[in-house]
Amino acid sequence: MTGSTTPVPVAVLGATGAVGQTFVRLLQGHPRFRLAEVAASTRSVGRTYGEAAAWREGALDREVAGLDVFPCTPDAVRSRIVFSALDASVAGEVEEAFASAGGVVLSNARNHRMAADVPLLIPEVNADHLGLIEAQRRLRGWEGAIVTNPNCAVTVAVVALAPLAEAFGVRTVFASTMQAVSGAGYPGVPSLDILGNVVPHIGGEEEKIQTEAQKLLGTFRDGQVRPAELTVSAHANRVPVEHGHTVCMSVKLDRGAGPDEALAALEAWRGDPRCAGLPSAPERALVVTRAPDRPQPRLDVNLGNGMTVTVGRIREDPVLDLRLVAMGHNTVRGAAGGSLLNAELMGRLGMLPGVPEGAW
Amino acid sequence: MTGSTTPVPVAVLGATGAVGQTFVRLLQGHPRFRLAEVAASTRSVGRTYGEAAAWREGALDREVAGLDVFPCTPDAVRSRIVFSALDASVAGEVEEAFASAGGVVLSNARNHRMAADVPLLIPEVNADHLGLIEAQRRLRGWEGAIVTNPNCAVTVAVVALAPLAEAFGVRTVFASTMQAVSGAGYPGVPSLDILGNVVPHIGGEEEKIQTEAQKLLGTFRDGQVRPAELTVSAHANRVPVEHGHTVCMSVKLDRGAGPDEALAALEAWRGDPRCAGLPSAPERALVVTRAPDRPQPRLDVNLGNGMTVTVGRIREDPVLDLRLVAMGHNTVRGAAGGSLLNAELMGRLGMLPGVPEGAW
Amino acid sequence: MTGSTTPVPVAVLGATGAVGQTFVRLLQGHPRFRLAEVAASTRSVGRTYGEAAAWREGALDREVAGLDVFPCTPDAVRSRIVFSALDASVAGEVEEAFASAGGVVLSNARNHRMAADVPLLIPEVNADHLGLIEAQRRLRGWEGAIVTNPNCAVTVAVVALAPLAEAFGVRTVFASTMQAVSGAGYPGVPSLDILGNVVPHIGGEEEKIQTEAQKLLGTFRDGQVRPAELTVSAHANRVPVEHGHTVCMSVKLDRGAGPDEALAALEAWRGDPRCAGLPSAPERALVVTRAPDRPQPRLDVNLGNGMTVTVGRIREDPVLDLRLVAMGHNTVRGAAGGSLLNAELMGRLGMLPGVPEGAW
Amino acid sequence: MTGSTTPVPVAVLGATGAVGQTFVRLLQGHPRFRLAEVAASTRSVGRTYGEAAAWREGALDREVAGLDVFPCTPDAVRSRIVFSALDASVAGEVEEAFASAGGVVLSNARNHRMAADVPLLIPEVNADHLGLIEAQRRLRGWEGAIVTNPNCAVTVAVVALAPLAEAFGVRTVFASTMQAVSGAGYPGVPSLDILGNVVPHIGGEEEKIQTEAQKLLGTFRDGQVRPAELTVSAHANRVPVEHGHTVCMSVKLDRGAGPDEALAALEAWRGDPRCAGLPSAPERALVVTRAPDRPQPRLDVNLGNGMTVTVGRIREDPVLDLRLVAMGHNTVRGAAGGSLLNAELMGRLGMLPGVPEGAW
Repeated sequence: MTGSTTPVPVAVLGATGAVGQTFVRLLQGHPRFRLAEVAASTRSVGRTYGEAAAWREGALDREVAGLDVFPCTPDAVRSRIVFSALDASVAGEVEEAFASAGGVVLSNARNHRMAADVPLLIPEVNADHLGLIEAQRRLRGWEGAIVTNPNCAVTVAVVALAPLAEAFGVRTVFASTMQAVSGAGYPGVPSLDILGNVVPHIGGEEEKIQTEAQKLLGTFRDGQVRPAELTVSAHANRVPVEHGHTVCMSVKLDRGAGPDEALAALEAWRGDPRCAGLPSAPERALVVTRAPDRPQPRLDVNLGNGMTVTVGRIREDPVLDLRLVAMGHNTVRGAAGGSLLNAELMGRLGMLPGVPEGAW
Repeated sequence: MTGSTTPVPVAVLGATGAVGQTFVRLLQGHPRFRLAEVAASTRSVGRTYGEAAAWREGALDREVAGLDVFPCTPDAVRSRIVFSALDASVAGEVEEAFASAGGVVLSNARNHRMAADVPLLIPEVNADHLGLIEAQRRLRGWEGAIVTNPNCAVTVAVVALAPLAEAFGVRTVFASTMQAVSGAGYPGVPSLDILGNVVPHIGGEEEKIQTEAQKLLGTFRDGQVRPAELTVSAHANRVPVEHGHTVCMSVKLDRGAGPDEALAALEAWRGDPRCAGLPSAPERALVVTRAPDRPQPRLDVNLGNGMTVTVGRIREDPVLDLRLVAMGHNTVRGAAGGSLLNAELMGRLGMLPGVPEGAW
Repeated sequence: MTGSTTPVPVAVLGATGAVGQTFVRLLQGHPRFRLAEVAASTRSVGRTYGEAAAWREGALDREVAGLDVFPCTPDAVRSRIVFSALDASVAGEVEEAFASAGGVVLSNARNHRMAADVPLLIPEVNADHLGLIEAQRRLRGWEGAIVTNPNCAVTVAVVALAPLAEAFGVRTVFASTMQAVSGAGYPGVPSLDILGNVVPHIGGEEEKIQTEAQKLLGTFRDGQVRPAELTVSAHANRVPVEHGHTVCMSVKLDRGAGPDEALAALEAWRGDPRCAGLPSAPERALVVTRAPDRPQPRLDVNLGNGMTVTVGRIREDPVLDLRLVAMGHNTVRGAAGGSLLNAELMGRLGMLPGVPEGAW
Repeated sequence: MTGSTTPVPVAVLGATGAVGQTFVRLLQGHPRFRLAEVAASTRSVGRTYGEAAAWREGALDREVAGLDVFPCTPDAVRSRIVFSALDASVAGEVEEAFASAGGVVLSNARNHRMAADVPLLIPEVNADHLGLIEAQRRLRGWEGAIVTNPNCAVTVAVVALAPLAEAFGVRTVFASTMQAVSGAGYPGVPSLDILGNVVPHIGGEEEKIQTEAQKLLGTFRDGQVRPAELTVSAHANRVPVEHGHTVCMSVKLDRGAGPDEALAALEAWRGDPRCAGLPSAPERALVVTRAPDRPQPRLDVNLGNGMTVTVGRIREDPVLDLRLVAMGHNTVRGAAGGSLLNAELMGRLGMLPGVPEGAW
């Protein structure tokens, strides 16, 4: 941190749901942001947050519990920095309304992720994609902005692929995921469906993995993002794990490399230096394990307070170049924590209302 | 069944362990075989089976419980048909000793699977590989025989791939497994390692998947098996499931085919007709599900008394030709049940001592 | 069976839910009843059963899948024998309507269980409580009948207590349950609530355990049931088990007895002889295990096709007389299977329309 | 803390096992103790700790990883404060040897817990039992000391019962436990035994619950502890939970009290004031939850860094006075953390070699 500032007020939209609660938890005690407002659907409006949320995320600050729940409209919510944990069924229009009213919306919803003028951001990986905001403002005629974080499974995969993409180029990925139940929200997956079971299907997930990975690893130039020429074949599975998505990958590189070179590239990678020291930025966005049977959700999911992706089992692939396994926290790095880090980076870069450039 | 016969006496080696118990359970009440003898390591010898085995497989017949446990030597065991559930650390020599003494050994151990003169058998898939026995007897100078069943994960994958191999040829497979804890035997996987967790490593498994698949789908000609020209890239994972291995596969065919053609080939496939009606043969070795989220271990593992593999989610692959998911019972079809079916087929073909050809 | 008869047509109300599906599964291939009709809420009416039910119970007969779903009214449903898997929010009135119309309703709902003129039945334990039907018809002025089965946890406890009640009288029970998630129906318990967790609360369960146990072990005399003078202190817990409720009990007897006498009484008990040989009656309603660590849901829940309760760990209690552990299948013996056995006993006793006394 | 001091060197015996690792983890970064030595069985001696321990407890300090593993003898280990995570098969003699040599042994083993001259300690509950050390030294003729922490399930129960014992006296307890797998160490419970299962038996546990509770709640007077006149009837169960023992209790008090009075006593209780501010002492040793379905291991086990017991569901008992549910962390509060707090209290009271009274 380059200087001390008064925390900036922020709001969470969709604050009572699972991702909303994670946003609230991560914002409690945040050094830069102050959770000033919570908003949710009409059936929660008029109650306090403590009454409306069936809180599941550890200790809830008394002050936050006492916040009134507002409706999700720019009229009702004053904060100009807004985290959106809204369901995709409503997120599209609500987020546009906030951006139209001048707000910066950090969204976990899928609605705008693939829009050509909306950044899909993992700060350590593609911070320069924030350049899309200029086009977004011009095209949409608003002064606010919408910035999105990717799908949780993609996030884990792409943090592990980014160093390989930078060093060797990534052409083809076969990805098979084993995803935690918290990825489906609450109540989410019925216990009868998943106790001692595997469900080899998660609606829409496999498509997102391909398309979002292309955009995330794409190149920002001349005001637009050119998607990476990358093909992903994905299998998405749900497993009886609480938190932590595991992704097994077989990878073909543009410039072939063996396990040793790949390992070196993965270990050397630090990601965009502008993220260093941000409150939610882990010491390392990616950690390499050499244990033969890691990463494991149970043992590694909370590394870097849930913001570090762990990659291991880097070995040859009999068909392509490499096999490896990545694992990360789906509701922290893969959702609310990722979005929060997006905001922190924007703050540092002078892209948040009320935060002077260089202040952070 | 083509005629009634007196059940033939058989023995189980390594009868007290997990796979051994499954052999014993499946042999209880078997119409063709009578479990006459059980053998195990020296610390069990001299006790009854009921005393020596910590029985976990439902009801144990009183008569079986009363059997004396013998040492695993051809001197001590009289049956000439022998099922081997021995650990790989001892199976190699013991099985050879039985074959030398004229016994037919149906083995679940990995030791001889890849030997060029030993059939690695899934009856519906490659029954003609039994032709290797002739060479085996000639080369090894014995009158007995060793016949093996493949690794549990390979079995599931290959039953699903066989119809595609027959119809279109299979060139490349990316396989990612999610394997049940029973595959590691008992006590096997500690609960602290797997409750709410995924372990992305199973020692030796990935190599077996590749090499055994090549042999299983190979061609028997001129007295030998020519391995299939097939490359497999495998990721083996342990998940908190009791029974049932799930395998996600992306497949490249020699003669490209789309999901509809593949589905048709999978649904039409019946496997080697000589297996039909054998006591352990399921009505269908492979069943196709069209449910979007199946197969699932919890719902599908016991189909065909655990002898049916279920395949589903047949869809295009963005890189290769097809994606699909196969699931089957690892300790039944993938171990003891598979070996038992091997023996039944040999009986029908007149290859078992004491069973005249055509009697079954 | 004392004679062969044409199966009698029956209907299932609430057939699409979890308990309804178990009724349907158990009625498929039933030798005495033919599942002729299925009924459910209005949103399922007009579809076939196969379309309306998200079937989870193994194989669904093609014929049953093709049945039209009717509304739950006596006008729409012709069968005079009706199994009710209705939710308590609607079961009360609907079941009365069917009884008014002359139907015999076998109900798993809690609504009428504690009514003084409604049998709460476990056939092997209190078959004579069927005598209440006479009063029920007189009081309610209908020719039909409502007969209920108890709550799933109570069922397990009372089958284990009945032999002790008969032999020694049971005065006080401290019961602590560990209940399977299937007891909450589908979708029921969210996986995030129960994976690797215990929830020490199940709404209304502890009260039911006390009151239903008193009625079940009560005495039928002079046309009414006098509740047993029995006090139960219950703790109800949900655990991550799919099927099988476990109940730990400390018991005070009227006429003190030690573990050996109790064991003898439990082993000798056979229950009401009129149940013997009924299609759903297990060989033994209660089986005693002497293993030090049994019963266990995983190993024992399917005994007697899920209709046998297993009791074990019979030992002294430092305060009262006995400690013991009972376990049984909550959706079979404790719900649909129990209700089905109620119907079978009524059939044998000539209490079902269309079934002559002595025919079964 | 009343002053700053140089951390005192300590050793952990049995450092490579599950409880040993928890000791090591809790000692890393401890403000008062410095982990100077680790000792284990002969097969680990001669290796570094990092090599010998299959570390499972998060991050292992590089310095600790580099410690040489010594044999468990006073000759080899110089520290005069020794934490014992030894197995009961060897703990008895080894701990006596260390005490004979002048060491203070803080033991998690059961061997000496019930000896009349050995404190069985929960600092907030019975700190005055440390007075037994005087007799211990006199009787055994040594200058060291052995101080034990109780069994993990007892710890949870007794922390919740202590306020009731102080306020009303506790006469009778019916306790039914649901215990986490980590209580059995590593590898401990096989996954095949506990996935989706309940095992209603833990060897020796039920006896310990009764006898240790009596001693813990007993009165120290005239140099000895008079056990509480308390009878406990216990059922011990293993459930598929990683960490956190849950105990359901029905309680009879000497001086009857209702739920409201009990709740008030539980909420008001703070435990022995001499524990306040010790490094491992939680802000509250006991926290009362009013949520209808808490405590739950998943949600509450890490409260107070695993040192806080949570109690809830305080309600009337139909037979006795009260029902309630307590839950706490079995390997922290119930094992290594409890022992560490014992040491910290002894340090504050001037009972540790090298720590002047009043220094802490």
